[in-house]
Amino acid sequence: MAVVYAVGIGPGKPEYMTQEAADVIARCECIGGYTVYIDLVKDQYPDKEFFSTPMKKEVDRCRMALKFAQDGRDTALVCSGDAGVYGMAGLLLELLPEYPGADVQVVAGVTAATSGAAVLGAPLGHDFCIISLSNLLTPEPLIEKRLRMAAEGDFALCLYNPRSHHRKDALRKACAVLLETLSGDTVCGWVKNIGRDGMEKKVLTLRELPDEEVDMFTTVFIGSSSTRNIAGRMVTPRGYENKVD
Amino acid sequence: MAVVYAVGIGPGKPEYMTQEAADVIARCECIGGYTVYIDLVKDQYPDKEFFSTPMKKEVDRCRMALKFAQDGRDTALVCSGDAGVYGMAGLLLELLPEYPGADVQVVAGVTAATSGAAVLGAPLGHDFCIISLSNLLTPEPLIEKRLRMAAEGDFALCLYNPRSHHRKDALRKACAVLLETLSGDTVCGWVKNIGRDGMEKKVLTLRELPDEEVDMFTTVFIGSSSTRNIAGRMVTPRGYENKVD
Repeated sequence: MAVVYAVGIGPGKPEYMTQEAADVIARCECIGGYTVYIDLVKDQYPDKEFFSTPMKKEVDRCRMALKFAQDGRDTALVCSGDAGVYGMAGLLLELLPEYPGADVQVVAGVTAATSGAAVLGAPLGHDFCIISLSNLLTPEPLIEKRLRMAAEGDFALCLYNPRSHHRKDALRKACAVLLETLSGDTVCGWVKNIGRDGMEKKVLTLRELPDEEVDMFTTVFIGSSSTRNIAGRMVTPRGYENKVD
Repeated sequence: MAVVYAVGIGPGKPEYMTQEAADVIARCECIGGYTVYIDLVKDQYPDKEFFSTPMKKEVDRCRMALKFAQDGRDTALVCSGDAGVYGMAGLLLELLPEYPGADVQVVAGVTAATSGAAVLGAPLGHDFCIISLSNLLTPEPLIEKRLRMAAEGDFALCLYNPRSHHRKDALRKACAVLLETLSGDTVCGWVKNIGRDGMEKKVLTLRELPDEEVDMFTTVFIGSSSTRNIAGRMVTPRGYENKVD
């Protein structure tokens, strides 16, 4: 039985991929993904069949992959970050029953929450939430409710998709919701172009965050009440120091 | 300036490590970590200096690493999963100001939330929370509050440390809290020994979860209201299918 592998390749450059992901891509006959990601790997494999669809054509892309597998050809569907976090893994599994003879396996990768956290320090060192601010697939009231619950639970928080063409003020709105509960002094940070050329980062406060210029390649971090700015690094302690002192 | 690299090596076998992590370990003069993890990498590098401390001696381990760096020797402190998620990265950054001349850099890895999710299907395909049930470093009322907020926000949820020597009933207690808000039919799953020999997994309901035998090497997943069991796979849809149908 041929398999579609949903492969997370991490934040960008090949060095952020796991060996498992590299092995699976090397082994598969067909490789598909969003055009930008295909361009990242295409040159390495002149003998493979590549396919891609533009953004927002995710369903078509998954169906193409499942059809290849149904025809007996192992196929890698490549996603940035992790294939299971706002990625294609779930959609492939939803469509799979329509493609008898094909199977789906997920190959984990480093998602932007942890690759971005590594750049800033350790903002996700204790319990945390990940919320996407994109309202393309989620109703805005649900996004706001989740922001409120994250703030009330004193979680550290990582925000994906803080700005899109359709929602330029998404981060400003999210900060307004969070500031109903959280202090303006809450330590925050953002990273742009994680693991790619032109990477930028900043550690700041929640009071300052709404005025920051973020884009669709920015990942945003909001601290919990225990998060600190230690010499420019954003750190959410796990609590070892309390056991020691 | 010599550096302590907090290196996440993923869930177990070397193939789940990123190329960046493998390169950093190969380059460093000294390598430290929890004994079990050191044993995983020791044989590959006969010419390096290794150091380890038992569990619960995390502060000592970080101080040893920072001292090596202060003495001018690049050092890798190896953690399973990601070094910034309940790992050593935060503690190193907290202690760093006491070690002038040393620096700390974090190398991201695949954390159990996403490696375990890949085994089960795609349980974390939409907004989610990660909560540790260990009460060693967190007061129980805060753990319970976060469980309540995660349930009220209809997040998918990943639980680390569902059982420990000191807290054998942690998962049962957490389920009782979640069942105040969530349906007993909520789709759940667990994975034991992710990426290692003896890996096991199960997809079940929240009603059944309290009676499961979990251990400290088990990662538990609780679905949101949209999570489904599709042919034995746990899937939290991102929502593409609503756009299509």
